[in-house]
Amino acid sequence: MEQTFKIVIDTKGGDNGPSVMVKGATLALERFPRLKVLLAGNEEEIREECDCLHLPADRVEILDAPGEITNFDNPADAMYQKTDSSMLLSLDTLSSRDDLVGMITCGNTGVALTGAMRYLSGEQRLRPALAAILPSQDGNFTCLVDTGATIDCTAAMLHHFAVLGSDFMRQMYGVEHPKVALLSNGTEPMKGNKLVKETYPLLSADERLNFTGNVEGSNALSGVCDVLVCDGFAGNQVLKVTEGTAKRMMTDIMRYARRTNSAEIGELFTHLMGVYDIGSLGGGIILGVTKPVIKARGNADEKAVVSVAEMLLNMAEHKAVFDKSRNHI
Amino acid sequence: MEQTFKIVIDTKGGDNGPSVMVKGATLALERFPRLKVLLAGNEEEIREECDCLHLPADRVEILDAPGEITNFDNPADAMYQKTDSSMLLSLDTLSSRDDLVGMITCGNTGVALTGAMRYLSGEQRLRPALAAILPSQDGNFTCLVDTGATIDCTAAMLHHFAVLGSDFMRQMYGVEHPKVALLSNGTEPMKGNKLVKETYPLLSADERLNFTGNVEGSNALSGVCDVLVCDGFAGNQVLKVTEGTAKRMMTDIMRYARRTNSAEIGELFTHLMGVYDIGSLGGGIILGVTKPVIKARGNADEKAVVSVAEMLLNMAEHKAVFDKSRNHI
Repeated sequence: MEQTFKIVIDTKGGDNGPSVMVKGATLALERFPRLKVLLAGNEEEIREECDCLHLPADRVEILDAPGEITNFDNPADAMYQKTDSSMLLSLDTLSSRDDLVGMITCGNTGVALTGAMRYLSGEQRLRPALAAILPSQDGNFTCLVDTGATIDCTAAMLHHFAVLGSDFMRQMYGVEHPKVALLSNGTEPMKGNKLVKETYPLLSADERLNFTGNVEGSNALSGVCDVLVCDGFAGNQVLKVTEGTAKRMMTDIMRYARRTNSAEIGELFTHLMGVYDIGSLGGGIILGVTKPVIKARGNADEKAVVSVAEMLLNMAEHKAVFDKSRNHI
Repeated sequence: MEQTFKIVIDTKGGDNGPSVMVKGATLALERFPRLKVLLAGNEEEIREECDCLHLPADRVEILDAPGEITNFDNPADAMYQKTDSSMLLSLDTLSSRDDLVGMITCGNTGVALTGAMRYLSGEQRLRPALAAILPSQDGNFTCLVDTGATIDCTAAMLHHFAVLGSDFMRQMYGVEHPKVALLSNGTEPMKGNKLVKETYPLLSADERLNFTGNVEGSNALSGVCDVLVCDGFAGNQVLKVTEGTAKRMMTDIMRYARRTNSAEIGELFTHLMGVYDIGSLGGGIILGVTKPVIKARGNADEKAVVSVAEMLLNMAEHKAVFDKSRNHI
């Protein structure tokens, strides 16, 4: 019999409520026979949804979690005051049970990160990073790290992100020598702010990294690198400015299509929506912890749950990335 | 007789050579009867071009400058070693002669800034900023400041940029109370990196500013603010990521148009090229000096010279912005 993998799904904290998460779980279970799920949240509510959707009882387990984290919760306070929340109970359970391989949550990013640090720290107690895997112009993927887990970074942290991102791209996407680049305001080695200038020699000197130098924002997602390293503030700008520009152009194209009443431009619009899939830019993978935690967007729908479940299954099969014995820096 | 205004045109340092700058001057003189020009560069070469293009001798003056600044010149060294360059002679002349109202250069940005600081500092000796005036989604303009003059900034500098940007939008675009926003990773007042958090209270407390709070990268150019304040590193990312994303989408649309052989999509492409005018994002206005200096892109063409000349004429007519007696912070 094929090996099965069980993932934790935090059903609370998303904009669309628990039923979307349970619906997503149903679709994922149908699609991936090797998947099992642990649904965390209000037990009674989840059970009703499961009965209604005829979930296979032998592949579903429920973790009753009465508390809930909101987007207004302060991460540090939540650690002590909301230990009965579905997010923190999920992380705690993920940490303590060997049969669980990963987790998805749509809730508060700060609490997810702080919780991951508390419950899923490896021996090194590294600072986790929030990476985004973005489609690059050449048809491959770029791992942008950090996208906002740590807003004020040190050069040592950026070095750490480079190693985490490289490991991830090597093990998840089979890139043998992932090209690492540092986001800067010019390609020359002397360009950059203080942080970038301090980080450059650290990345250059690390023989485990295939460091290719600085890259400008205009080439960030062109495919020139597999791992793009920056602090969380800059990474947030790369994500949000990309999203804002794409949305603005899509709005312009839609208006033009309406004005000209052109079916061909309508088809182009649909094509671009597929390529840019603007809504998908907001999620992220927490790297630097012992098991993968994927933070989906607050407004994630059932399809997002399916694609995250697939990603977690792939990660479980390539489990080296999140090995507790990892000893990076 | 209508008042005339004379501007300095640095003919060296651009990718397309001096003849493009002289051609641009010819077009600008034809279009604006109140314009006069001082062309700085190799006198003989300029005179030949002028004769060839039949420039009106009474509206053209030549400043012989044998030296040239390249993009490899270090700004600090150039100040002492290249005082015979067209850029530094232009700045020096602009500073010493009351009849000159502004300057355009396509050369080395660092030298232009350092030179402007040396020759055009007001009594306050403020640090100049490089602002970009970008078309926003609502059809107005947003002044993005700083776009790269100062890569590592202090909160006092960002405060200064907010004042400079507000003055500029008020006086040049007639925005009575320019809305100032601070680029951050979230709209809440407590969001931001250390620099943004330190800057927020300074902008809030300054009653001369119409400070509207933080704005995220996704809304940077949506029109929510007239002045977007950030450090030069972040501003460079906003510019370059916007440019990179727009270019990437345009490439996709062009490929799609070719594949489908659709004339309508070809027309859409032309329309978008007009709206986004990707090539125009790279220039900038040096603010915080006694007279306006506009840094055009290295690859500026004759049309760029005409539009910069128009901008300088407008500035001369609204001359308050660059008044020597300004006493901002």
